Amino acid sequence: MAETPITPRAEDYSQWYQDVIAQAELAEPAGVVRGCMVIRPHGFAIWEAMQADLDRRFKETGHKNACFPLLIPMSFLEKEAEHVEGFAPELAVVTHAGGKELEEPYCIRPTSETIIGHFFSKWIDSHRDLPLLINQWGNVMRWELRTRLFLRTGEFLWQEGHTAHATHEDAKEEVLRMLDVYRDFAHEVMAMPVIRGIKTANERFAGALETRTVEALMQDGKALQSGTSHDLGQNFGKAFNVMFQNENKEREYVWQTSWGLSTRMVGALIMSHSDDGGLVLPPRLAPIHVVVVPIFKKDDEKAAVLEAANRIADELRSDGLQVELDDREGMKPGAKYFEWERKGVPVRIEIGPRDLEEQSVMTKVRVSELDERGKPKKEKLPMEDLGISIGKQLDDFQASLFDAAKKRLDESITFVDTWDEFRDVFADQSSRFVYAHWDGTTETELAIKDETKATIRCLPYESDAPAEAFQPGECVKSGKPSAQRVLYAKAY
Amino acid sequence: MAETPITPRAEDYSQWYQDVIAQAELAEPAGVVRGCMVIRPHGFAIWEAMQADLDRRFKETGHKNACFPLLIPMSFLEKEAEHVEGFAPELAVVTHAGGKELEEPYCIRPTSETIIGHFFSKWIDSHRDLPLLINQWGNVMRWELRTRLFLRTGEFLWQEGHTAHATHEDAKEEVLRMLDVYRDFAHEVMAMPVIRGIKTANERFAGALETRTVEALMQDGKALQSGTSHDLGQNFGKAFNVMFQNENKEREYVWQTSWGLSTRMVGALIMSHSDDGGLVLPPRLAPIHVVVVPIFKKDDEKAAVLEAANRIADELRSDGLQVELDDREGMKPGAKYFEWERKGVPVRIEIGPRDLEEQSVMTKVRVSELDERGKPKKEKLPMEDLGISIGKQLDDFQASLFDAAKKRLDESITFVDTWDEFRDVFADQSSRFVYAHWDGTTETELAIKDETKATIRCLPYESDAPAEAFQPGECVKSGKPSAQRVLYAKAY
Repeated sequence: MAETPITPRAEDYSQWYQDVIAQAELAEPAGVVRGCMVIRPHGFAIWEAMQADLDRRFKETGHKNACFPLLIPMSFLEKEAEHVEGFAPELAVVTHAGGKELEEPYCIRPTSETIIGHFFSKWIDSHRDLPLLINQWGNVMRWELRTRLFLRTGEFLWQEGHTAHATHEDAKEEVLRMLDVYRDFAHEVMAMPVIRGIKTANERFAGALETRTVEALMQDGKALQSGTSHDLGQNFGKAFNVMFQNENKEREYVWQTSWGLSTRMVGALIMSHSDDGGLVLPPRLAPIHVVVVPIFKKDDEKAAVLEAANRIADELRSDGLQVELDDREGMKPGAKYFEWERKGVPVRIEIGPRDLEEQSVMTKVRVSELDERGKPKKEKLPMEDLGISIGKQLDDFQASLFDAAKKRLDESITFVDTWDEFRDVFADQSSRFVYAHWDGTTETELAIKDETKATIRCLPYESDAPAEAFQPGECVKSGKPSAQRVLYAKAY
Repeated sequence: MAETPITPRAEDYSQWYQDVIAQAELAEPAGVVRGCMVIRPHGFAIWEAMQADLDRRFKETGHKNACFPLLIPMSFLEKEAEHVEGFAPELAVVTHAGGKELEEPYCIRPTSETIIGHFFSKWIDSHRDLPLLINQWGNVMRWELRTRLFLRTGEFLWQEGHTAHATHEDAKEEVLRMLDVYRDFAHEVMAMPVIRGIKTANERFAGALETRTVEALMQDGKALQSGTSHDLGQNFGKAFNVMFQNENKEREYVWQTSWGLSTRMVGALIMSHSDDGGLVLPPRLAPIHVVVVPIFKKDDEKAAVLEAANRIADELRSDGLQVELDDREGMKPGAKYFEWERKGVPVRIEIGPRDLEEQSVMTKVRVSELDERGKPKKEKLPMEDLGISIGKQLDDFQASLFDAAKKRLDESITFVDTWDEFRDVFADQSSRFVYAHWDGTTETELAIKDETKATIRCLPYESDAPAEAFQPGECVKSGKPSAQRVLYAKAY
């Protein structure tokens, strides 16, 4: 493999992102299908790890998976006025099938509230059928003009939860519960701190009463919306006649929610942890936890070293780790290190003749401090109980990635009170998370966006923002009164 | 729930099939999307169990999952002449997207050989890149005229394996290996015996050199193709210019395979084991292994019975079983039994006050022999080590389902030597598996199909058919010489 360089982040963050993806063989633009991508095995394995963890969380909170049609009659979208307005410009439309023109065209689902609303109306009859808690893993399509691998693609993979409840209160609890599932997943698994909050009316899901979001900070100071949870009220219930008989034998519309998280998260993961050496993966999402590289110079060393490398790999596998033994011939250890670092493998084990004598191995964590000679620190570990010590390294590495990202987030947060300062902050190339006051109008929100490209990411939860953000003040743009600060950032 | 009756199989097999699906809430026709279906949670959980088992087998044989675009440029299909001829009539076509007419329309993938061939040509350069072993889980669309839940739907879920190899021999080995994976899955997990064999040229996958199949016998005597594995030769390699440099530094086209298994298998499962009482599931695919039904008449019995029922449910769960405790109020035990039987739960545990005294429970396996009074046998089991005894019941039940299906398959097999007899067998409503001679021509194959609706399911493997099937004879239709018998059946 030619050692194609990765553009340093400081030079061109956007090119760095593409280079990391290409070098780690995560995905590539489909090219022949506009705006779509191919997710290659190493990238797909990361998504599978995300799916496995989220799916467990969804099932633990009482949800069941189901599968609804890919195609939706165009007329369905039109039943909810805001919904069609939001999604119509991005639809891919099937007009012909089976060699004939269709009487009514279908769109490829951009999201499934409408078709699922239709089926909920058939399945729900009594309050005993509620809550109905459904999730779907699948592909959706939104014909976007500007696309970027993982972050915004014509087709993407995601999960969409859809639930129906007897009361608005129950639905609201569900919205909060699932947002917290996303937050827990981001923190515990992605090692990516997020700020929970409520979207403004302008940034709300088309057809929702309220949208809640978890917002993450990327390394370049931009925000990335990482999961949303919507209170749909009775909007889709009314559009699709989803009614139930309550305990007083009265017919009522159900209260619905929906919530989704997509392959976008692979992009968020890359931009949270990776470095100029390539991909960095938190162990909980790494398809390969450990690579073992045998080192020998003479032929008479080879057999013993390979035997030990195999034994260690098997031992670690029996401890539940995913281990790759790189015994490729005709390739120097350094070239192997280079390749596995780019692929984000959290821990490398080097084993050579001297290690055999000492009954130890040399280990290197993917991101490590420099030693006194300016080289990345390695750690010598005894072969005995290696699974336990590697397990600890992985746990520590997972925690350190979260800590580093949390430190970056905390340091990025800036309180801004004047419009001049606001403009300056966002004119700066290094974008950041800004808490400033807002007068609550869409007009001001759009004016701010026009001038600075900064958008209101959310009205943060009190527990997720500094206490000072919840003191009243004056809108940074209009000077009108404001009850609390909101979170501004440039966003992906 | 109103106790809607299930049509007996003897009365109307096709209606019985639909009733079982409806009563077990497995799926329903989408209605508003022609020929498509909604897979409901109980049905989807069965597919998830199938996926989990197959995915493990694919990974154990070295395959990695990836994700390719849903849409395929129409021109791609035309690059392989037989392929487009086979699939063109069934395509769903996207002509508009993002509010504009597209310059080149896309079809929704009916299968992905073409688009994957395109990417293989970018990824493969040297013999060191081979074999390339990829699998994709996803949805595909084939606009079929006559559809039937699970068995044939416009959109269906499946996996499609796509591999590239340096030699035809390697590719052929892969074709055999993956067919055996399907056979093992059918036998060990679905409890469904299959016959492996080679398809005739007429029944081959469009664009393949050879198609291998596993064929199962449904209860009504019809065959169901349950998984296919294709030797694509260099057909797609040439169409998409997938070349590699061999060890002698010469450029060669790769040899490819593809193999697939779909949600059709949920239909096969239903028609292999279910009965007039509803769904029957082999334990290895049952989303719920055990339902615990507490029984009490007086209020003072209730607390103790519920406490014991909960304790037992928890114990079984800690043994790794999926357990449902049905403590719904205002519903008689008999109504609960009825409902869970229809949903195919393999084992029911009844627990009442007398059981508590005796420290035992009453158990009922979903399909059981009748006792001397003509009632289904129940078995009393001690509470101690209940997980072990229930585990044994489940294992025995899994084995008994396979044995019953195998017996039915063996008994169905009929050797036919004359055309009169052949016509009579297939004029009979109870279809069956027939071994008869064939002269090897498509002309005869189609003439037989025209007259009897029977098709050649495969040229069976020697190990999967009686030895007498491999003696020479004369074609049952033309009288011309034939080297071996082939498997005929009416098919789904």
